[in-house]
Amino acid sequence: MAETRNVRVGVVQMRPSTDAAENLRTALAETRAALSQGADVVCLPELFLTPYFCQTEDTSPFDAAEAVPGPTTDAFLSLAREHDAAIILSLFERRAPGLYHNTAAFLDGARGYAGKYRKMHIPDDPRYYEKYYFTPGDLGFKSFATDKANCGVLICWDQWYPEAARLTALRGADILFYPTAIGWHPEEKEQLGAAQHGAWEVAQRAHAVANGCFVVAVNRVGFEPTPGGPEGAGIQFWGQSFVVGPDGVVIHRCANDKPETVVVDVDLSAMADVRHGWPFFRDRRVDAYDGIRARFLDD
Amino acid sequence: MAETRNVRVGVVQMRPSTDAAENLRTALAETRAALSQGADVVCLPELFLTPYFCQTEDTSPFDAAEAVPGPTTDAFLSLAREHDAAIILSLFERRAPGLYHNTAAFLDGARGYAGKYRKMHIPDDPRYYEKYYFTPGDLGFKSFATDKANCGVLICWDQWYPEAARLTALRGADILFYPTAIGWHPEEKEQLGAAQHGAWEVAQRAHAVANGCFVVAVNRVGFEPTPGGPEGAGIQFWGQSFVVGPDGVVIHRCANDKPETVVVDVDLSAMADVRHGWPFFRDRRVDAYDGIRARFLDD
Repeated sequence: MAETRNVRVGVVQMRPSTDAAENLRTALAETRAALSQGADVVCLPELFLTPYFCQTEDTSPFDAAEAVPGPTTDAFLSLAREHDAAIILSLFERRAPGLYHNTAAFLDGARGYAGKYRKMHIPDDPRYYEKYYFTPGDLGFKSFATDKANCGVLICWDQWYPEAARLTALRGADILFYPTAIGWHPEEKEQLGAAQHGAWEVAQRAHAVANGCFVVAVNRVGFEPTPGGPEGAGIQFWGQSFVVGPDGVVIHRCANDKPETVVVDVDLSAMADVRHGWPFFRDRRVDAYDGIRARFLDD
Repeated sequence: MAETRNVRVGVVQMRPSTDAAENLRTALAETRAALSQGADVVCLPELFLTPYFCQTEDTSPFDAAEAVPGPTTDAFLSLAREHDAAIILSLFERRAPGLYHNTAAFLDGARGYAGKYRKMHIPDDPRYYEKYYFTPGDLGFKSFATDKANCGVLICWDQWYPEAARLTALRGADILFYPTAIGWHPEEKEQLGAAQHGAWEVAQRAHAVANGCFVVAVNRVGFEPTPGGPEGAGIQFWGQSFVVGPDGVVIHRCANDKPETVVVDVDLSAMADVRHGWPFFRDRRVDAYDGIRARFLDD
């Protein structure tokens, strides 16, 4: 058994309101609460400053985009420094007028702003019209090393792609963090809801297993109506943020109906033990994976 | 909703004995039973003709290897033809003296022997000393199209590799079949057994989700002692063969303590419905997956 390497992971499951200033205050307060409990890394949900504006296609949300680094990373810098902790902030990045990304900024204690990841896989389906707002990321897959842990950062739709998890793990990530905004369409929840949530959790537990690392998904929670939509239309964000170990076992799962800030202890030494038992990295057929770069092998 | 495309999948969960002739008789009888219930494709467990001989390193098992196609594929040809069905046979392939593969043969109705897949990922850990016996496959990832379904064939240790599932799905597979021999070390079952089995099932359910296809794992079952090992040493093959849909939901799971032959109806049209809801194939970042071909990205 390897020597223990304890890391305290802070999960802030939020229910953002329509008031950006209030959301920032809540995010700062909950991050501070997690840090006060000793969190070494805190992760917030996807685009926590605003309602999930991608439910419709409209120009007005562009006004809320900001530079990264910029005002929101600045607002968290002192917290990161005071507590010598890392903070992962999912932001709407304005790169140039007409050029926006769905971006996660990584703050690392006294180092401050350490870099960013731009969401590589962009969804587009009813009430998740992200292709309208976000240009796909051009920075590749990233993991940020702190003195406590190597933190891979991915975002929401990325969580369905084993390639994204693998490439981030190959960069040395101990933990894959997924700021997320996913939920049910209320009108299909009864028929499909359990399978949808189940698939989401299973896909990410499998990333932990395949890569022998930890996975942390931080979702928003609560109902957000579709602007201008019919009565009852919207997204019921399903919460259930979770932390899973390299053996695929869920260590903590948050509630499905309310905000929750929790600090979860993980022991990174479990990775070596699990990888010794299941040496998947040893046997990858890197000589035979060329086709992964094809759209479809129908030639 | 797409038009239904029903396929009947035959799962033969076997408990092989030390008598190869008896195992062949059992396999033929159970395959016939599945075909009589209308199975369109029948899959047998990994290396069903013998005990799982990789528990030790010994030259004697090489005597049981055979050409593929060869005597065992011949023994199943008439069954495949009579029932116009596909049969997946996991065999110990002798390619040349000193050159052996862990190979699955694919029989397709009147077409007969349609080709083979050689296990690409070869494990090696206590009681699973496969690297001693099997040269890693050199045929790449394969899917066999019949008039009923496009059948991807992978083998056991492959099931831990998202790359293998992805590449086979990109070849057009509707169903990924995994002949398997996996179980518990009795001495660690109490501590690790539940997590090990859970990770195994989760990893494969995730292949179904990530690729929007069906997955069928066919395991052996029962205790096999380690030849020459101490009292109680061996592998408790955990059975629990299963069929899972493209939404990740388990459609059927076999017993953990006895052989079972079952025919499970699946509707391949569910794939289009699921892929329309979760269009993961549409958004793959094939421009950014180069690193998948690296052993580790530590440069």
